[in-house]
Amino acid sequence: MPASLYDLVIRGGTVATATGSFKADVAVTGETIVAVGLGLAEGAREIDATGKLVLPGGIDTHTHIEQVSAGGLLNADSFESATTSAAFGGNTTVISFAAQHRGLDLRNVVDDYAALAARGALIDYAFHMIVANPDKKTIETDLPALIKEGHASVKVFMTYDLIKVDDEPLLDVLLTARENRALVCVHAENHGMISWLGKRLVAKGYTAPKYHAISHPRGSEAEAFTRLIAAAALIDQPIMIFHVSTSEGAEVIRQARGQGLKVFAETCPQYLFMTRHDLDKPGLEGAKWMCSPPPREAADQDALWRALALGDIQTVTSDHAPYRFDETGKLSAGPNPNFKQIANGLPGLEVRLPLMFDAMVSKGRPEFEGRGLEAFVNLTATAPASIYNLPNKGTIAPGMDADIAVWDPKRSVTITDELMHDKTGFTPFAGRTVTGWPDHVLVRGRNVVANGALAAKPGAGKWLKRTGGWAAEPTGRLTADMNPETNFGAKIL
Amino acid sequence: MPASLYDLVIRGGTVATATGSFKADVAVTGETIVAVGLGLAEGAREIDATGKLVLPGGIDTHTHIEQVSAGGLLNADSFESATTSAAFGGNTTVISFAAQHRGLDLRNVVDDYAALAARGALIDYAFHMIVANPDKKTIETDLPALIKEGHASVKVFMTYDLIKVDDEPLLDVLLTARENRALVCVHAENHGMISWLGKRLVAKGYTAPKYHAISHPRGSEAEAFTRLIAAAALIDQPIMIFHVSTSEGAEVIRQARGQGLKVFAETCPQYLFMTRHDLDKPGLEGAKWMCSPPPREAADQDALWRALALGDIQTVTSDHAPYRFDETGKLSAGPNPNFKQIANGLPGLEVRLPLMFDAMVSKGRPEFEGRGLEAFVNLTATAPASIYNLPNKGTIAPGMDADIAVWDPKRSVTITDELMHDKTGFTPFAGRTVTGWPDHVLVRGRNVVANGALAAKPGAGKWLKRTGGWAAEPTGRLTADMNPETNFGAKIL
Amino acid sequence: MPASLYDLVIRGGTVATATGSFKADVAVTGETIVAVGLGLAEGAREIDATGKLVLPGGIDTHTHIEQVSAGGLLNADSFESATTSAAFGGNTTVISFAAQHRGLDLRNVVDDYAALAARGALIDYAFHMIVANPDKKTIETDLPALIKEGHASVKVFMTYDLIKVDDEPLLDVLLTARENRALVCVHAENHGMISWLGKRLVAKGYTAPKYHAISHPRGSEAEAFTRLIAAAALIDQPIMIFHVSTSEGAEVIRQARGQGLKVFAETCPQYLFMTRHDLDKPGLEGAKWMCSPPPREAADQDALWRALALGDIQTVTSDHAPYRFDETGKLSAGPNPNFKQIANGLPGLEVRLPLMFDAMVSKGRPEFEGRGLEAFVNLTATAPASIYNLPNKGTIAPGMDADIAVWDPKRSVTITDELMHDKTGFTPFAGRTVTGWPDHVLVRGRNVVANGALAAKPGAGKWLKRTGGWAAEPTGRLTADMNPETNFGAKIL
Amino acid sequence: MPASLYDLVIRGGTVATATGSFKADVAVTGETIVAVGLGLAEGAREIDATGKLVLPGGIDTHTHIEQVSAGGLLNADSFESATTSAAFGGNTTVISFAAQHRGLDLRNVVDDYAALAARGALIDYAFHMIVANPDKKTIETDLPALIKEGHASVKVFMTYDLIKVDDEPLLDVLLTARENRALVCVHAENHGMISWLGKRLVAKGYTAPKYHAISHPRGSEAEAFTRLIAAAALIDQPIMIFHVSTSEGAEVIRQARGQGLKVFAETCPQYLFMTRHDLDKPGLEGAKWMCSPPPREAADQDALWRALALGDIQTVTSDHAPYRFDETGKLSAGPNPNFKQIANGLPGLEVRLPLMFDAMVSKGRPEFEGRGLEAFVNLTATAPASIYNLPNKGTIAPGMDADIAVWDPKRSVTITDELMHDKTGFTPFAGRTVTGWPDHVLVRGRNVVANGALAAKPGAGKWLKRTGGWAAEPTGRLTADMNPETNFGAKIL
Repeated sequence: MPASLYDLVIRGGTVATATGSFKADVAVTGETIVAVGLGLAEGAREIDATGKLVLPGGIDTHTHIEQVSAGGLLNADSFESATTSAAFGGNTTVISFAAQHRGLDLRNVVDDYAALAARGALIDYAFHMIVANPDKKTIETDLPALIKEGHASVKVFMTYDLIKVDDEPLLDVLLTARENRALVCVHAENHGMISWLGKRLVAKGYTAPKYHAISHPRGSEAEAFTRLIAAAALIDQPIMIFHVSTSEGAEVIRQARGQGLKVFAETCPQYLFMTRHDLDKPGLEGAKWMCSPPPREAADQDALWRALALGDIQTVTSDHAPYRFDETGKLSAGPNPNFKQIANGLPGLEVRLPLMFDAMVSKGRPEFEGRGLEAFVNLTATAPASIYNLPNKGTIAPGMDADIAVWDPKRSVTITDELMHDKTGFTPFAGRTVTGWPDHVLVRGRNVVANGALAAKPGAGKWLKRTGGWAAEPTGRLTADMNPETNFGAKIL
Repeated sequence: MPASLYDLVIRGGTVATATGSFKADVAVTGETIVAVGLGLAEGAREIDATGKLVLPGGIDTHTHIEQVSAGGLLNADSFESATTSAAFGGNTTVISFAAQHRGLDLRNVVDDYAALAARGALIDYAFHMIVANPDKKTIETDLPALIKEGHASVKVFMTYDLIKVDDEPLLDVLLTARENRALVCVHAENHGMISWLGKRLVAKGYTAPKYHAISHPRGSEAEAFTRLIAAAALIDQPIMIFHVSTSEGAEVIRQARGQGLKVFAETCPQYLFMTRHDLDKPGLEGAKWMCSPPPREAADQDALWRALALGDIQTVTSDHAPYRFDETGKLSAGPNPNFKQIANGLPGLEVRLPLMFDAMVSKGRPEFEGRGLEAFVNLTATAPASIYNLPNKGTIAPGMDADIAVWDPKRSVTITDELMHDKTGFTPFAGRTVTGWPDHVLVRGRNVVANGALAAKPGAGKWLKRTGGWAAEPTGRLTADMNPETNFGAKIL
Repeated sequence: MPASLYDLVIRGGTVATATGSFKADVAVTGETIVAVGLGLAEGAREIDATGKLVLPGGIDTHTHIEQVSAGGLLNADSFESATTSAAFGGNTTVISFAAQHRGLDLRNVVDDYAALAARGALIDYAFHMIVANPDKKTIETDLPALIKEGHASVKVFMTYDLIKVDDEPLLDVLLTARENRALVCVHAENHGMISWLGKRLVAKGYTAPKYHAISHPRGSEAEAFTRLIAAAALIDQPIMIFHVSTSEGAEVIRQARGQGLKVFAETCPQYLFMTRHDLDKPGLEGAKWMCSPPPREAADQDALWRALALGDIQTVTSDHAPYRFDETGKLSAGPNPNFKQIANGLPGLEVRLPLMFDAMVSKGRPEFEGRGLEAFVNLTATAPASIYNLPNKGTIAPGMDADIAVWDPKRSVTITDELMHDKTGFTPFAGRTVTGWPDHVLVRGRNVVANGALAAKPGAGKWLKRTGGWAAEPTGRLTADMNPETNFGAKIL
Repeated sequence: MPASLYDLVIRGGTVATATGSFKADVAVTGETIVAVGLGLAEGAREIDATGKLVLPGGIDTHTHIEQVSAGGLLNADSFESATTSAAFGGNTTVISFAAQHRGLDLRNVVDDYAALAARGALIDYAFHMIVANPDKKTIETDLPALIKEGHASVKVFMTYDLIKVDDEPLLDVLLTARENRALVCVHAENHGMISWLGKRLVAKGYTAPKYHAISHPRGSEAEAFTRLIAAAALIDQPIMIFHVSTSEGAEVIRQARGQGLKVFAETCPQYLFMTRHDLDKPGLEGAKWMCSPPPREAADQDALWRALALGDIQTVTSDHAPYRFDETGKLSAGPNPNFKQIANGLPGLEVRLPLMFDAMVSKGRPEFEGRGLEAFVNLTATAPASIYNLPNKGTIAPGMDADIAVWDPKRSVTITDELMHDKTGFTPFAGRTVTGWPDHVLVRGRNVVANGALAAKPGAGKWLKRTGGWAAEPTGRLTADMNPETNFGAKIL
């Protein structure tokens, strides 16, 4: 066996998978991991991982990049800035949105975002298609074709005036997804409650950012989850519920899963580390902490951590939404906006993994019972790759893409606005000190970050074609209403 | 003490109340019961009730009378024919609807129905105001005023294209009701599911009446209940959920009540005695059994009986909706209608009490454990009077209106179309034989039915002014979102 | 009609039943109510009830009277003192215990208690038979015979070393009750947990009375309820769960009832008005508040009130257990007893009704929504009479026993040890001021208390024969294990 | 790098872990896996795994080997025969029992079983210590010492007259386990129900084996689970619930886990593949299918599969209990035994993995959604190794023991009595045809089975020292009763 059998060996580290961790070298040939073992042969290139953790690169499956909001607001990041920020935070894949607005043609939308990403992305990427214009062409022509072409996930909103989809078109989307095998991701909050309460708060003069947290009442989440699940159960279509924020919401999901319904769920650092009291700051400052749903209470954080440990929630994403705290972003409505006039969303691509690592691995959240590292890998890489059907992503094993982050588990970092590589200009997590940060980040065997410095160019990222996958398969169990054996013979699905 | 101390004595019967039954005479002076006792003094008039049951007159709190549907369809009954039919079935009070359609002025609507009822009604009556046009005048002016004038209940629909109210105006109605102390009654089904499924069934050629039952999937009920309850809980406003049809729906109600939410509920004979298989008849015949929600399964019947026994459902009404089985009614759309073109609703004013009496008293449904008579009185008279705040109605005691039905508990009657006194022309309960039927029915001491013959004139009925009442009182327990102590001080309610 | 038609007329008051309240006179002939009405004819005797409430006499279905504990401790009350105290507190019937200990013959036990009661009781009474020696004679001979003779309720203990019944003999008792139609009342706590924890606390020096509250862990209640319900469900035998103290316990009952199981429940003022913090007093003083289960937390009180309002708990009793706070009672073990050496139980016969009246009627607990008076009558008279099958007791209506308490709803009384007529020497409710107190108490038409003074003699009370009744009937619904159709044909029940 | 870098290479197969599967060679040096990769260097020895699956060896954590029953009955297997059978079925580790009976000294018991296993075992092994004599020495001296010496799991029985442990000593065992960090495994059924019902069935002449299934009523399982969980929650001690058989039992576990309680669970092939109807055979034949708890219904099978997929149940074991169907085993009581006289238990060591593989991988149970292979590996190797803290066992990765089974996924085998290598003489799974069977089985790098032939000697197996582990750690969350902050300062734990 010749020297330099391998193109690259990451040597001497501790490899972690969702199943366990062990000391091993990792060998890469071309873009692929080819061996994991002790005392592997020399690589043409070597990375010394002694004392480090060798983890599958993070996958952030909920990010808004270079996206124009339905209201016309630009987000601050390009694919270049966003994926740079993502890579510095240990990520090797992102899924962002191809966001249809009312009146837009879905295929054009997908083409436009694909072009932006191809030009700018430093790491690999895919798209969820947002359907906000569920007309006949979208539902019957574009959506089926685009799913089959490799965009195997769809997102719909049950709230926001400009993009929300009502129950009936929601069923159209669910059915189309079912027939073409895509996962349907949903922002599920009760629109009526939020709209009603927001108007009432503003009318009574409660306009500060903190009232945003009140304007999304807790019950608006569990209600929408229940409704969405009822629709999905009717159609037997798998769903992914985005950004769970309340204990009641988590409980609805647990109940549904216990009944065998195919319900996946996500939460975000803002719901695990913030509360609504973070919005209670002087003047407009609290706007930096505004997102939808809003952060809730400490008891909800505990419930969400438990749901993660129980497997009721399977993914933790950033929901990165980079609106600057200036007139191009959050404050675009003018000098004295009420909370309804301030863009919802906050940046998080870069800090998601360090925050989770710190909590789960360094501090050892008790829910994970000493297995925080495996759980971290699963939540942030293995499970998202599996659920969203990202082939050859999500774990360290022979044959997988060499998407690897080498973490220094001892490095202590205090988060600051300046540290961030995105273009938002602030991070609501500033001031927090975390232990554990990635030193090297490799996508398909090439460094994007090397020793903490940028090492790749825009365009290096690759679009990931995704078709079907187990998570998008219906269960085949039909309710009595939909089952021809019990519904007077009607073949509905 | 002179002879003829009393105007009327009903002598020798067994009086039943919701608490118990006992042999006693009942004495009436003027319109009022003045004594209940053994060996009461002579009345100017006497009714021999030996071997009979002396019960409070039935109260049917969900009836469509002389109402024009949103689609323009006339129902077959006038107040005269409907209240005649009601009286023959043992009823002394009905609540029907003052039905606003889109574009109509609520006060005009109420005035119109009031005039019709005043002219035609043989028994006492009140109105639920249907709000289908929740504009500013309705919500802010007419509804508060009309509630205060004595119409202390409102109805909204969460389904039906022409009259449904979305979540946000639903909250407006709930809040207005809260501020003026009215109970909000709701037809709660998920509109999107029903609409989507109905279109799909018809498109695939499943057009027979039986597919109506499939087009309202079971899950559409529990979903809407959950959503409605979430809205009501947000506002802390009591609600009455009409016509519960599924076990899952009943369970949602039980859960909500267990949490201390003020949720009342109703079911109807069609859900207790029919199943969806009753719609499975040749040609259009099944249309006679079409109502919304549709009858379900035998297991649902059992669940509903249990919910009645447990107090989770407190009332049983007819939901009388008298569409004739001809071109003036169910078949108005032409010769080959699909099920979406056939009016929903069936008559039931006259048979509701005999059906319930037969099941609960004569046959002794096991859920009521030998106390079926008391439960019958409670469900059909005492509880509705209490919940809808019908003063001096609903039981036999000194001071109460002398609304009394003298039942022959042994009389066996086979229900036929011909036996009915309403104008629908058919009854879906035809062919059933029941034991127990009212011989005499008195409203405020005057016979409406005497020995099975009509004894009153149109216009004898009186409008019942209803204001507030315990059932319409909010609990005062606010959720954290609505409580100024926990919502950053916002006074929302 | 002559004057003095009636023996007694209680005139001018407001009569309350479980269904409603109304102004009416109440006429009595002999021992029986014969009429309720406005302007009734004169009585030979009249009681002016103007401004007063005329209520059915209270029924206290859980009282320890003249009972020797299994450990040999005498309780302080004779039937004379206990029923005197009961009458002063508005009661007209008590059920106490015929308490078998290990080795005792059940028939002898019943005879002995019957003789004591016949001699001493001033008000009517019945017995629950405690089975603590479930041998062949007790189970197969005495219990069936005694049930049939009119003692239609049995009590067993799942805890206390000297009298507890294990799961297997518990099933024997349940089956015998089923075959002879008796209700089985149970003190349900997990013995092992309590014993284990008590020993451990004492061993570690935590001996003060307040640790009694800790030694009965919350979970010991719901556990035992679940186990008891499983046993009763297996046999299809109705049960009454005594003295519910925790929210979890109440929830277990609600769940069971929701499944159609025949589970009744009771709570007591000590769980509605006290918390475990009441035991936290200097020295041994806290012993006055010691009972089993112990009082819990304020949140449990709320849960119990809600359970009462929901009908999950149907009765409120005193669990009167009159151990004096001296060497004849609580302190019999010597000068420095640990909490395991102090008798459990506290007096309550006299204050139960005033405490409940004050809370439900005068202060208007919100759970009862303005119908507190009806609920009070139901909980304290109508429901217990119905569940325990006390014929002609529990409401005011023609034909019923004239067991009546005339309450002054405005009378304010501060409870003191001195005010009490029992022999315990203290009341743990001392110092509380309540509004509402009975002025007159009549048993079968004769005053026991008249204008607040004693008016009857020992021996005036009558034993009430109770056989069967709806509450003691099995439902007839067998589980798959017990149903010959599904258990390989085995006829087990 | 020289040839024969490795002692052994298993080449060309598909390696499966709980996380995923991938083509790779597996290299072994000494007893340890050192590399997993594509194109690994040559091994001194090679196994061709082309077309085969390379899986971690199965771990069977519930087996009765060479154990004398409390009634004195010998089971048919020695460690030699049992581990031979296990190895042929793809297993590389078993946990059996060191079974204390009443009156026996626990240390002696452990020593005796250790000697038997050291002499006979062909594969690795560990012991659960059965505590049936919870006296002071056992609890305070032997148990703590033995746990610390490496026997980090304890088993207790809540039923069986001769070995059951009541609630109070159960708490002693739980606490001792907590203080010394052992997992407590429990056979949890309600003894009273089973004993009562068994006696009654026999007394009425229902003696055939099938009545065994009736004599363990469904409710006896969920009841005991609830009680056990209440005890464990009081102490905050992790538990493993053995052999879950009912849907209700699975639901109790799901509820407890949802509340954050540390409850693990197991089921067995007999509950996944059999129903109680399997016992319904002529004569005594059904005795072959007798085990406790008994198999239940098809709906329970579905619930258990779902619980496995949801993670509510984490392990599937054989509960191998090899009683011969002759006078040395099941029929030891004589010629006409009733079901209470027939030993409970059935063999299963050899067929457990093939049955599960066939269902999960070959047939693809829908609950596992196309990921059946990963789930199979997890349930049968990774999860048991993790929960029972078997170091370096349970997965294929560098550093792990080379415990490997090479499966032929296409091999079809019809199970027969003759095929089995244990000494029971029959298998209740005879006649079933499964697809997938192990060709080679290696323990620490050495073949125990090679190409389907035995290749190891008795004594080759090694005892596995187990101390603590995450699954045996208490959560640290104390209930209010046990928490000094809320229990009047008592330090109980």
